Amino acid sequence: MSVLVVGSMAYDSVITPRDERDQALGGSAMFFSAAASFFTGVDLVAVVGEDFEIKELDFLKKRGVNLDGLALEKGETFRWKGRYLDDMNERETIYTHLNVFEHFKPSLPEHYRDNRFIFLANINPDLQYNVLEQVRDPQFVAMDTMNFWITGTPEELKQTLSKVDALIINDSEVRLLSDEQNIFIGARKIQQMGPRILIIKRGEYGATLIHGNSYFNCPAFPVEQLFDPTGAGDTFAGGLLGYLARTDKVDNENLRRAVVYATALASFCVEAFSADRLKELTTKEIQNRSEEIYHMTRFELKNAWEKA
Amino acid sequence: MSVLVVGSMAYDSVITPRDERDQALGGSAMFFSAAASFFTGVDLVAVVGEDFEIKELDFLKKRGVNLDGLALEKGETFRWKGRYLDDMNERETIYTHLNVFEHFKPSLPEHYRDNRFIFLANINPDLQYNVLEQVRDPQFVAMDTMNFWITGTPEELKQTLSKVDALIINDSEVRLLSDEQNIFIGARKIQQMGPRILIIKRGEYGATLIHGNSYFNCPAFPVEQLFDPTGAGDTFAGGLLGYLARTDKVDNENLRRAVVYATALASFCVEAFSADRLKELTTKEIQNRSEEIYHMTRFELKNAWEKA
Repeated sequence: MSVLVVGSMAYDSVITPRDERDQALGGSAMFFSAAASFFTGVDLVAVVGEDFEIKELDFLKKRGVNLDGLALEKGETFRWKGRYLDDMNERETIYTHLNVFEHFKPSLPEHYRDNRFIFLANINPDLQYNVLEQVRDPQFVAMDTMNFWITGTPEELKQTLSKVDALIINDSEVRLLSDEQNIFIGARKIQQMGPRILIIKRGEYGATLIHGNSYFNCPAFPVEQLFDPTGAGDTFAGGLLGYLARTDKVDNENLRRAVVYATALASFCVEAFSADRLKELTTKEIQNRSEEIYHMTRFELKNAWEKA
Repeated sequence: MSVLVVGSMAYDSVITPRDERDQALGGSAMFFSAAASFFTGVDLVAVVGEDFEIKELDFLKKRGVNLDGLALEKGETFRWKGRYLDDMNERETIYTHLNVFEHFKPSLPEHYRDNRFIFLANINPDLQYNVLEQVRDPQFVAMDTMNFWITGTPEELKQTLSKVDALIINDSEVRLLSDEQNIFIGARKIQQMGPRILIIKRGEYGATLIHGNSYFNCPAFPVEQLFDPTGAGDTFAGGLLGYLARTDKVDNENLRRAVVYATALASFCVEAFSADRLKELTTKEIQNRSEEIYHMTRFELKNAWEKA
């Protein structure tokens, strides 16, 4: 089973406390596809400008990412520049040039419309909704969003939320969207808006899956060479959807495994700029790291007060 | 096997976004004992002033907490007042009156000196060291500390650190003590100072056990009624040491279980002011919540790329 993603293609300029990189390949659809393509075919929808070096996507093509949905428009590709502070949990944007992304109206090639696993990356919720309308029989739809849409286009966001199975966001977005300080109460309020599944990305603290009334927590892999966090969230989503599509099952057990593979993938992403680490990565490395996460979470319980 | 704790007895005044409480029973030795006594006997060392209502400790006595090491001095008991902000991850101190705690020189009753499980709560590292010297044959020593001692008395702190098995601290203290932004690199530097075991308390994100080269992560229980975080860290330590002393085993498997029970205990502590929730708590509730944490962490992995 393949997976459909709509999102951005970008050139990112990134400054970290350790190093910097100018105009590296970025964008949510790129990171997502780089991760998901370890598991399954990907149908990509995005837009680039005339300045885009299409050869840079050869590594994705080789892994089975379909680029028929990549529109080429007059103008420049989306560009973002940002700086990470201190322990990389905070960042500031230096500029965002939407360029061709500003008037992006995604149109799905005919042969994309039968996809059943869909990821709507962090774009205008109206566009997310519009893409979803073009899919014939979606089976599992996940979306991302951000503060900008939560405060700027709340009605459009709620319309899209009402149509998805899963929302993948971070702690502060849960608080903002639910208007609740307590994450768990907030999560329940968001579930009532549509998605029965919430996956809360918590950076160095891992991820929490809330599926109906069930909680699952996956710790982050202890990364010692945190190099550049850009794209970690979309890489996470790519691992998650890729694994679910490959196994074609969205029950609780499989969702938990998907969160673990997603966590492993994200931990590789941050070890280098852009998708550099994902390009050279092997499935064996992903499997090994997922198993390390397994061992980090194991314990057995007896009743402490029962006589042996 | 009983456990020895040296720490503070206090009257805490606490303001939270939800409510406030004046001069409630507090202090690290109190919270620690309230938690550890579910598992084993506790020998408590602390100091109170003439204003202290000794009856308030009846609930501890009933649970097997020995108060022979509780000194009564002329003057007032240690008092602290603080306010929690927003989501309770931050707090500001309104006042700290050390009172009788200022000149506290802990002296262990003779029958305390054979304890083998020791917890040195967050006090002057010189006093921690001095207490440890009075114990004949310590088997497992854990300590807490804080920014104040890390920056104020670094040499004394390092002397105590060199004598302990385990250090229980939070993220920012790891960074400060190790002078490393990366928690995992910082933890290794701290291990070289003495403690082979680090337990990093991460509040709503749970706790990480680093034991030699092995990592274990325990998520926080999803508390919806976060009422007052005061004492959660000492309650955690009490659960940890109490369980280890009860089972008299400090191997990796047992340390993991101890972290889980500690996490469960801490999650009850924050549901009410002072030790109110711990007073009425039952071992059955602790066991049940520990099992809920177990279920929050379960998943099974197959190789995603191997044919079934």
